[in-house]
Formats: sequence, C-alpha cells, structure tokens
Amino acid sequence: MKNFMYHIPTKIHFGRGAISNLPDSIKEYGNKVLLVYGGGSIKKLGIYDEAVKLMNENGIEFIELSGVEPNPRVETADRGAKLCKEHNVEVVLAIGGGSTMDCAKAIAAGANYDGTIWDFVSGKSKIGKVLPIITIVTLAATGSEMDTSAIITKWETNEKAGLTGPNLRPKVSILDPEYTFSVSKYQTAAGTADIISHVLEVYFNNNPGAFLQSKFCEAVLKTCFKYGHIAYKEPKNYEARANLLWSASWAINGLCTKGAPVGWSVHSMEHELSAYYDITHGVGLAILVPHWLRHMLRKENAYKYAEFGINVLGIDSTLDEMDIANKAIDALSKYLKEMDLPSTLTEVGIDETYFDIMAEKAGKGLANAFIPMNKDDVLAILKASL
Amino acid sequence: MKNFMYHIPTKIHFGRGAISNLPDSIKEYGNKVLLVYGGGSIKKLGIYDEAVKLMNENGIEFIELSGVEPNPRVETADRGAKLCKEHNVEVVLAIGGGSTMDCAKAIAAGANYDGTIWDFVSGKSKIGKVLPIITIVTLAATGSEMDTSAIITKWETNEKAGLTGPNLRPKVSILDPEYTFSVSKYQTAAGTADIISHVLEVYFNNNPGAFLQSKFCEAVLKTCFKYGHIAYKEPKNYEARANLLWSASWAINGLCTKGAPVGWSVHSMEHELSAYYDITHGVGLAILVPHWLRHMLRKENAYKYAEFGINVLGIDSTLDEMDIANKAIDALSKYLKEMDLPSTLTEVGIDETYFDIMAEKAGKGLANAFIPMNKDDVLAILKASL
Repeated sequence: MKNFMYHIPTKIHFGRGAISNLPDSIKEYGNKVLLVYGGGSIKKLGIYDEAVKLMNENGIEFIELSGVEPNPRVETADRGAKLCKEHNVEVVLAIGGGSTMDCAKAIAAGANYDGTIWDFVSGKSKIGKVLPIITIVTLAATGSEMDTSAIITKWETNEKAGLTGPNLRPKVSILDPEYTFSVSKYQTAAGTADIISHVLEVYFNNNPGAFLQSKFCEAVLKTCFKYGHIAYKEPKNYEARANLLWSASWAINGLCTKGAPVGWSVHSMEHELSAYYDITHGVGLAILVPHWLRHMLRKENAYKYAEFGINVLGIDSTLDEMDIANKAIDALSKYLKEMDLPSTLTEVGIDETYFDIMAEKAGKGLANAFIPMNKDDVLAILKASL
Repeated sequence: MKNFMYHIPTKIHFGRGAISNLPDSIKEYGNKVLLVYGGGSIKKLGIYDEAVKLMNENGIEFIELSGVEPNPRVETADRGAKLCKEHNVEVVLAIGGGSTMDCAKAIAAGANYDGTIWDFVSGKSKIGKVLPIITIVTLAATGSEMDTSAIITKWETNEKAGLTGPNLRPKVSILDPEYTFSVSKYQTAAGTADIISHVLEVYFNNNPGAFLQSKFCEAVLKTCFKYGHIAYKEPKNYEARANLLWSASWAINGLCTKGAPVGWSVHSMEHELSAYYDITHGVGLAILVPHWLRHMLRKENAYKYAEFGINVLGIDSTLDEMDIANKAIDALSKYLKEMDLPSTLTEVGIDETYFDIMAEKAGKGLANAFIPMNKDDVLAILKASL
C-alpha cells in the first residue's frame, strides 16, 4: 500500500426529503447564492421550485445561471464566475448531474480570479480561493458531489480536461434517490457505465498490496452490476436508485484510490471523444472499457481479470485464468449492451478522422496505467472500438 | 436504505513516516498540547521521542498525561481534563491504541466542563465544546482514530460505557503501519477480533436494501480474514499491518453503518465483561461473537449467514442455507482459535457470578439487533460462552 493522505470532509444528506437540509447548509457559508442548473428538467420535476421555496422562506438571496451544457463549456463557467463577482455571491449551488456540478465547481474556482477559468486547466494559473460549493444531485454517475475535480470543455480547440483542487470538493451534497427516478433509460445506463469505469480504472492497477481498496472497488462494482439493470427496467425502484447514487459518490471520492496507483486511461481517451464529437461521457466509456481491458490483457496480468471475473461477476473459479479473463470482458460487454448502450464508435457517428490527434493527446500521461500505455496503444483501442 | 447524514472530516496521514505531518496538524489548532499515552511502549519504540522532537523543533509546548489504563478509568480522564484547564491546553494528542485514544477523547470533552466526565456517559450533562483531538495510532483495533465515540470505565460501579458526539471525531489521525509491527501476537489477535466484531454487528442487520453497505462490510471482513493470520505470524509484514490498520478505521467510522440499522449487541455484552473482570476488549468479543451468531440463527434469517459464509469465507454455495450458516460460524470460531484467542469465558476466569446483573444491563436497548434481544437472550449467550 502506498503512503497517502485521505480527507473527505463533504457532508452528505442522503434519502427522501434530504433537500430540507438545504437552508441550513447554505447559511453555514453565506446568504447569497448562485444557483446553477442545466435545462428545464429540474423545473419539470419540482426540484427547482422546492429549492427556491426553501431559499425564499429562509431569507437566502439567489441569482441564476441556467443552460449549462452536457460537456459544459468554459465560456458558460466564465459567465458564472462573472455573475459571482458582480453580485458578491458567497455560495455556488448546483442542481443537476455531473455537467452542472462540474460547471458550478469551475465557477466557484473562477469567482475570485480575473482571467478565464481555462487558465486553471492549462496550468497558466493555480486555483486560489474557491467559493463554497453545495450540490443537489439528480444523476448517479460522475461522483462530482464528493470529489475534487471538474471537467470542462473548450470547444473551439476540442479540448476537454479537468481542474482539480481540494477546495473543489463540495462542502455539502444532497442526495435524494427519488430525484433520479425520472432519469431516462439512456442516462441511467450511461451513468452506470461511468461508475463502473471509474472503479475499473482504479481496480486494474499495479499494487496488489492495496487489498482493502481492491475489495472496496469490488463492493461498488457488485452494487452497480446488481442495480444498474434494475434501475434501467424499474426507474422508480428506490433501492436500486439509492444504491447506484451512493455507489457513484464512493467510486471516485478517494476511498478506492488512496494507497493505490491510478491511471485514468479510459477517461483520458473518452475526453477526446467528447471533445471532438460532444457525445455522452458514459456512452463513450461504455464503448471503450471492454476494448481497453482486452488490449491490456496478457498472461502475466490475467490474475487481476480473474479476480474481477470471479469476485464481481461470479465466473467459475476453476477455469483457466485467461479463460476467466476473456469471459469477464465478454460478460461486461454483454451487461452494458443489455442496457442498450452502443458498443461501437461507429454507432455514435465516430470514424477514424481524428484518431491520430486524439491518440496523441490521450496517450500522454498513461505511464501509470495497468500496463504503461502510449499513443500506439490508444490508437489500437480506438480502432478496435470502431 | 434508510435516510442518513454522512460526515467524516477526519484527515488521515497514512504510511511510513506519516508522523512528519504532526507539527502542521497540531499548529492548525493551537500550540499547547496535552500528550496522552499509556504505558512505556511508545517510549521503547521511539515514537514518543520522535513526537517530542517534532514538537520541540516546531515550538509546540506540551504537558503529559501518562499511564492510561486498558479499559481507561474515568478518574484518569478527569485528571487529564483538569490538566487541560490548568495549562490552557488547546489540542489533545493521543499516542496509542483504543484505550489511549478514547481517554484522550473523553479528556477533550471534559476540558471545558466543570463536573466529572462521567456526566456525559450517564446523561447528566450534554457534551459542549470539545478540544481538537489528534491521534497517532499504534494498534489496529477500535477505530477510535476516525469515529465519534469514547468508551470509558467507572470501576467502582462496574460500568463501562461510552460518550458520543460529532466533535469527538479526531481532526487528524496519523497511521503508520510500522508503528504496529511490535504489537504482541495476543493484541494483534484481539485487535483483529475487535474489527471483525464491529463489522459483523453491522453486517447482520435487518435492511437488505443497504446493499452497498453490506458489500463494504464484506470488503473489510475479507481483509481482516486475509491479513489477521499473516500479521499474527509475521508481525513485520507491512502489507498485512497496513491493511489491518486501514480496515480498523473503516469498520466503525460510519461507512458501513450509515443507511443500515445497527444493534451493537456484542459490544454491549462485552462491555459488561470488561466492567466486572477488566479483560481485554477484543478477547471478550472473540469469545462472544460465535455464540451470539449461533443464538440468533434460525431458518428465516439463515440467508444472511449464508451470504457471510459464501461471500466472505468462501463456503460452497450449493449447500443448504442452514448448513452454510453453521459452517460459517464454525469457520469463524476456528479462525479466531488459530490466533490462540480464548474461546470460552472460563478460560479468562469468568464464571456465572455476575451473569444476571450483566444480562440485565446489556439486555437493554438491543431491540435493533438482528433479532430483537432481551435479558434472557444475553443470559443464554453468556451461558453458552462458559
């Protein structure tokens, strides 16, 4: 196990009616809120009304930034940061899924900075003072509600990348599984694929000594494999939605990663797909993950695939390791396909046009992957995914 | 899954040399420390010297309270609280295992209170302002380094009970697996039994919908079953010590319990044993746990035992549920016995003398157990443990 520092101070209010904790949560940090959200779904679902009512009743002032895009644009975040400065905002409140939360986090980082938020992504500037962030989550997927990163997109240069810092971790997150009842089948499937990918990218690492972490990974994976299909078929199944929602938070908040080396290889590749084609993040991951696993598999590391196959997917442990490994990848592909997720890039309209530049960009910094990878590896995975 | 609030802000520095973070950790909260420890082992191991050197080099003043007992006495904690008042202590630093940490937590709660700390246990007074607590852990067992409770003993009335509050959770805990290399075989075994008991008391609950929590329990249990014996046989095995140490923290900090009902039945019973006979906590648990499980088993709940048997202990899943259940309890007993832990109360010098009063006291408040229990149940378990 590697040395590490673990610190996750986010306060979580979980369960039916958890939004009742919103006023006190805000007031701990201020009285002037920027409310960030995407399209109109939170209005249709009544979450917007409920939040507004609670803020009004408690004398909390707020201004709004709506229309946050899936794969949120840096321009939107910059606009939010400008609003914060103009209105002396004290707390940034996101209501939505990963895109909205990430945009809110970027805004919170930019609220005390004079340039564009992209400077924090490009490394031109370091994140300074960050406004307190509160989230109300409407999708089990990115885990943004409990982690330290925000992924934003600069469309003009086809760049999708992250800013990271301990203060980007939300102070409070409100997780009501019922808020995810109306998530579409497509987004439910993509969200589940996102969680699974987060965990697999940690689970497949080169530190067998981080055993507890590996078992935590299996815990989250088993939960996803059990409840993904249930939520897909029965959108109002509380137990399924609750388990997926809580799994999403733990998949990437640090519990699984602290003490273990992490590569984030598939996410690097997917960010390139989204940056050029604006596809749904979880869908890109669902397409890539099986091919990534297949590409890395060799006799020496088949033991890890076998662990996955036996412990998570229940594959017969008496079989040959390589056999279990291949069966595990097949079972994963099948699982994702059964939620009608695309399994090829062709299906989502992606061809080889940008493969070279994508591989060039994603291939950097994959030395920590389960097997060290470079541009050629990425290219091979992309081609196999066509 | 039940509604819950999750908030674990303790900062953990984990790994070899993690003590280097001590000065900064203290200075975040003050400059005047009460250093709390037990016998001389931290001096023999050099941990005391290292901590003192780091404090001296960084201009941190400290006074000492040594001689904290296993099953720490309220009088000792009261003495510590008095020292805090007399010397305007700002931070309480514990170096040791569960007893030392719990005593330090009680002291921190008593430092701003005029009466005895027992008032917080008896309910005569509520915990008010608590001094910041920092711990350096030398034993994988109680999980006090990341939880909200402190268990103390009032010997004159044979009472062992806890005080609890969110501010009793340490601000910072330093976990260096090498600090546990010299833990005796006996204490290693008892500590492992303590962790296993913490998890089993949560794992056996009446909320199958808390699936993720149940899988987290299995993760910690598997880690204990794997590494307990290794640490017992190879005390300087870093991987084993690291995994046990990190497991201890997660067994009881809230991850496994939030969203699931918990009974803490075995701990209630063991506290009675320790309060009358001053035995090692983990040893009492090791004796009781198998009998507690056996007492609760019936056809309707055998499914949970089977889960434990199959998922944690690797018992053949094709067997009959009741068969798996009994095999699982047998395997647990065998596992504990192989670390030379006593398996009967008789072995540790306990007879029926106080069974009636112990059962009377422990039998209260066990309505939330896996099966609701009362005095008669406790009595039956104690008798079976003779």
